[in-house]
Amino acid sequence: MDNKFPGKDVTNDDLLHKFPLAAKRDDKQRSKFSISGVEFGGDLIPVMAGPNMVESQDLIFDVAKNIKEAGAHFLRGGAFKPLTFPYRSERYTETRELGLRWLHDAGEKYDLPIITEVMEERFVPLVAEMSDVIQIGSRNMQNFPLLTACAKTHKPIMLKRHYGASLRDWMGAAEYILVEGNEKIILCERGVSAPHTHRSTSRFLTDIQVIPAIKEISHLPVVVDPSHATFWRPWVGPMALAGIAAGADGVMIEVHPDPSNAAVDPLQPMDYLEFNSLIYRMNLVAGAVNRVISVV
Amino acid sequence: MDNKFPGKDVTNDDLLHKFPLAAKRDDKQRSKFSISGVEFGGDLIPVMAGPNMVESQDLIFDVAKNIKEAGAHFLRGGAFKPLTFPYRSERYTETRELGLRWLHDAGEKYDLPIITEVMEERFVPLVAEMSDVIQIGSRNMQNFPLLTACAKTHKPIMLKRHYGASLRDWMGAAEYILVEGNEKIILCERGVSAPHTHRSTSRFLTDIQVIPAIKEISHLPVVVDPSHATFWRPWVGPMALAGIAAGADGVMIEVHPDPSNAAVDPLQPMDYLEFNSLIYRMNLVAGAVNRVISVV
Amino acid sequence: MDNKFPGKDVTNDDLLHKFPLAAKRDDKQRSKFSISGVEFGGDLIPVMAGPNMVESQDLIFDVAKNIKEAGAHFLRGGAFKPLTFPYRSERYTETRELGLRWLHDAGEKYDLPIITEVMEERFVPLVAEMSDVIQIGSRNMQNFPLLTACAKTHKPIMLKRHYGASLRDWMGAAEYILVEGNEKIILCERGVSAPHTHRSTSRFLTDIQVIPAIKEISHLPVVVDPSHATFWRPWVGPMALAGIAAGADGVMIEVHPDPSNAAVDPLQPMDYLEFNSLIYRMNLVAGAVNRVISVV
Amino acid sequence: MDNKFPGKDVTNDDLLHKFPLAAKRDDKQRSKFSISGVEFGGDLIPVMAGPNMVESQDLIFDVAKNIKEAGAHFLRGGAFKPLTFPYRSERYTETRELGLRWLHDAGEKYDLPIITEVMEERFVPLVAEMSDVIQIGSRNMQNFPLLTACAKTHKPIMLKRHYGASLRDWMGAAEYILVEGNEKIILCERGVSAPHTHRSTSRFLTDIQVIPAIKEISHLPVVVDPSHATFWRPWVGPMALAGIAAGADGVMIEVHPDPSNAAVDPLQPMDYLEFNSLIYRMNLVAGAVNRVISVV
Repeated sequence: MDNKFPGKDVTNDDLLHKFPLAAKRDDKQRSKFSISGVEFGGDLIPVMAGPNMVESQDLIFDVAKNIKEAGAHFLRGGAFKPLTFPYRSERYTETRELGLRWLHDAGEKYDLPIITEVMEERFVPLVAEMSDVIQIGSRNMQNFPLLTACAKTHKPIMLKRHYGASLRDWMGAAEYILVEGNEKIILCERGVSAPHTHRSTSRFLTDIQVIPAIKEISHLPVVVDPSHATFWRPWVGPMALAGIAAGADGVMIEVHPDPSNAAVDPLQPMDYLEFNSLIYRMNLVAGAVNRVISVV
Repeated sequence: MDNKFPGKDVTNDDLLHKFPLAAKRDDKQRSKFSISGVEFGGDLIPVMAGPNMVESQDLIFDVAKNIKEAGAHFLRGGAFKPLTFPYRSERYTETRELGLRWLHDAGEKYDLPIITEVMEERFVPLVAEMSDVIQIGSRNMQNFPLLTACAKTHKPIMLKRHYGASLRDWMGAAEYILVEGNEKIILCERGVSAPHTHRSTSRFLTDIQVIPAIKEISHLPVVVDPSHATFWRPWVGPMALAGIAAGADGVMIEVHPDPSNAAVDPLQPMDYLEFNSLIYRMNLVAGAVNRVISVV
Repeated sequence: MDNKFPGKDVTNDDLLHKFPLAAKRDDKQRSKFSISGVEFGGDLIPVMAGPNMVESQDLIFDVAKNIKEAGAHFLRGGAFKPLTFPYRSERYTETRELGLRWLHDAGEKYDLPIITEVMEERFVPLVAEMSDVIQIGSRNMQNFPLLTACAKTHKPIMLKRHYGASLRDWMGAAEYILVEGNEKIILCERGVSAPHTHRSTSRFLTDIQVIPAIKEISHLPVVVDPSHATFWRPWVGPMALAGIAAGADGVMIEVHPDPSNAAVDPLQPMDYLEFNSLIYRMNLVAGAVNRVISVV
Repeated sequence: MDNKFPGKDVTNDDLLHKFPLAAKRDDKQRSKFSISGVEFGGDLIPVMAGPNMVESQDLIFDVAKNIKEAGAHFLRGGAFKPLTFPYRSERYTETRELGLRWLHDAGEKYDLPIITEVMEERFVPLVAEMSDVIQIGSRNMQNFPLLTACAKTHKPIMLKRHYGASLRDWMGAAEYILVEGNEKIILCERGVSAPHTHRSTSRFLTDIQVIPAIKEISHLPVVVDPSHATFWRPWVGPMALAGIAAGADGVMIEVHPDPSNAAVDPLQPMDYLEFNSLIYRMNLVAGAVNRVISVV
């Protein structure tokens, strides 16, 4: 947040025609960019899959192999993990640098670009070096110094929406990245707090409506993460399909070989078989809206 | 709400296996019933279309003709209309009994079963006689005497969700109909109040997630009404497609020959051309989830 | 909702200066009226107390005696009760006409005007005859025919806010009563649905902020009901005091001789001792804002 | 977030009796601590006042002088300011290090401890040195590395609640501070997003109910900030009084000599006269609940 920030030396004409950078300039404007050969913002709907947490080297290699065969485009996994309380159970082993290395190697072996979250400025250079997309988590959506630090690496950034954020708040956060000259931003809807909870264990409501709302005002691609949004496996498939039908430019799905034994959030991941079936069904819905998921 | 209500003479076995009536008894249970030859709860996804208000005889006949050609299954239109304030503009002419008659005749001429809202117990017999489906509006979702009066007519009932209601509240309201022995209930999601408004004029968020949530616990069919839910034409199409992809058993769309001159809510209806295009796209998405909209 | 409704023959001048009737015409305007000798909208902050349900004749007489001694101004109690599901447990005995009679007699014996809910148009004449204030419950806030029927009795009406209603929705509902020429309206805040639930059993958040919001735009008195709003006894006292400090014109408190054995909602009522203590503390806070609760 | 975090070497007994640290161990437990001679968690209800932004040296000295005379205990002001979008108007001059110095000097001159926000880890040492209380803003409530860095300075910390956070989320964030051995935490309620907005310009609802909710489970003091929560001057007074009546342990009020010309959020600050009057009224309500604001 330095002096080169706009606001002082921009002309009125700039304000009308150039800012905010996240806004569409004409109705058809749409950001398109490639990440390791996978295009965002075009006809393809990339699928990002993997476990919530990189629990072990074996696990992440096994997941990578299986999602690659199923047709996924990105491998995801958490090495640095935020927790609501600062305590972890025995089974919750944050793998940090080591997990990041395993994730990187699994991606390399199975030819899958990787995406992982960064939570602290001091780890930004490391995550930028090791991963193909840097993920900003929900809780850090308005951590502006972190946004700026990530933006300056010029790596692609996936900006998750805070569970309490309005569309305006979210666009403002994206603007902090764009203003640094980094235009490779992927927005990600992962569920909002709402009074209309459907199960006592379900804390969020997937805001599918935000997808056409973004498309109306912004050129940025938007991805839906129904695993975190629903917190409940039986709803993940329907909400992934709904997201695609509504115009999402990508899908993020939590996959684990043995969901009930996942180290965190065991109610939400799919196993390999379920994920295979979902990819097949997502492909059909994508085709119905003139998009494509997978040519496997 | 008389003595024949359960709660007094039911056995413990009944409580475990029979109540609530809205709940699924086994995983595959699914209500199926026909209304004037149109099946709900099966592979077909019936489309209900028409203006917010039956503004005139000419208008409703013109709409009926056009939506029939486009492939819609039901004609909808408001004759008795609730308003937040008890005042109406010149252009807001509640047509009441006369409008109901026009709606009925238009449906008859173009072979479209009709659906319309009833707001008062005293009009229940009239609406039950003239229409094929009785609609309970959002504001009356927990008007239990009205629910009971409608239930007793044994006509099919579409129960709109209150914009502030939880799933449990909604299921309880359906139960008031089921307990009278009337099993032809169609649930309708029409948007919920949420803090995450996307435009200052948009008051509601379409809760697509409630569709798989209902399917998990109940056998009742559920319809999505994206016109009222989004309050904004550009989002109606994407949310209709999202609803179908998520498993909706029907769609309700507001259609008007000249949307910007509609007597109420001019920002939400589609014109005939847009509706034609939407039917085509809904059919494609329906096909992708093994359902069908229209064979026209 | 007949032809005498405004909207057709009002002048532009009327629209600017007379409508909506719920709005203040000048900054100091404030509705004042007496119900059975108790003034609303003045310096007094009337307290309405009693059980959720008129469980038995003995119970309601005992409560009446005790709250009168403590300094309450109104006896409240439910004879006709809405339930989310149409089933009642053995202990949930809706007392209906009989309960209304008991309530009336208890009020008469202990010189307490009474307030009770009406849910159906057909009972409006009976409730109007037997009680001093007619209560419209949360779920019926936008049941416009019921509002109109109650308004026409010209009895005072307490209009509870729907748990999902905006302030505009609520004002519109009040307008349906005012437009019939009935100006004795008491608004009642009883908790709104919000994503920020504090306990899994607490469904609502008491919206204290709506009190100054109403005072800014409307002349109508507003009462707070912390028992239903919090659903949790330990918070009832603090929220009653907060309501008074924020400008509430009355308080409604659930009181039961043996809360843990109350037929409904046993977590929220106070016993006599707690109520006595609360009246004392409310009096102190009322004094701090130049109001008064009780001169007992 | 280092290895000394609990979770690995705590005993089961610890888990039952010691964690979470934010929880009360017995019903009467209550944190008490002094900051520059002002006690939190006791009978006193400290008042923190000042402008949203330290606009200039003159302004902050003038405010300090006036709030001191009125009876305030702390001087607040923003030197480092987060903004939803990364643009500032001409009038929005973030004063940063310079503003922090002015704030510090104004506090020293008028014998008022100061409180100001820190947004970046790299400024934590500077803010810790210059101010008496470090403020964590709403958007950074779950910025765990920032919380940890602030905690380690062992300065008192005011932790503002995120506008979308549940009570559990908030308690978890406080735990990140407590676990570092820093027990001087002041919680601050500053409004939550809710569907029930009362004005189109009012984005938040002051959650007064969270005050008794916190008191029930935690020993930490809680402050209410009605200026940010209501975003609307006419409601600031009533909500400050409501907070005190509900048990708040402090109040934060935005004060500006010329509110309509404030550089940011000109609808919410009070002028000196209004603040004087509010202190007087807060004192009365505090007295009614056996607390005290000011002995001036």
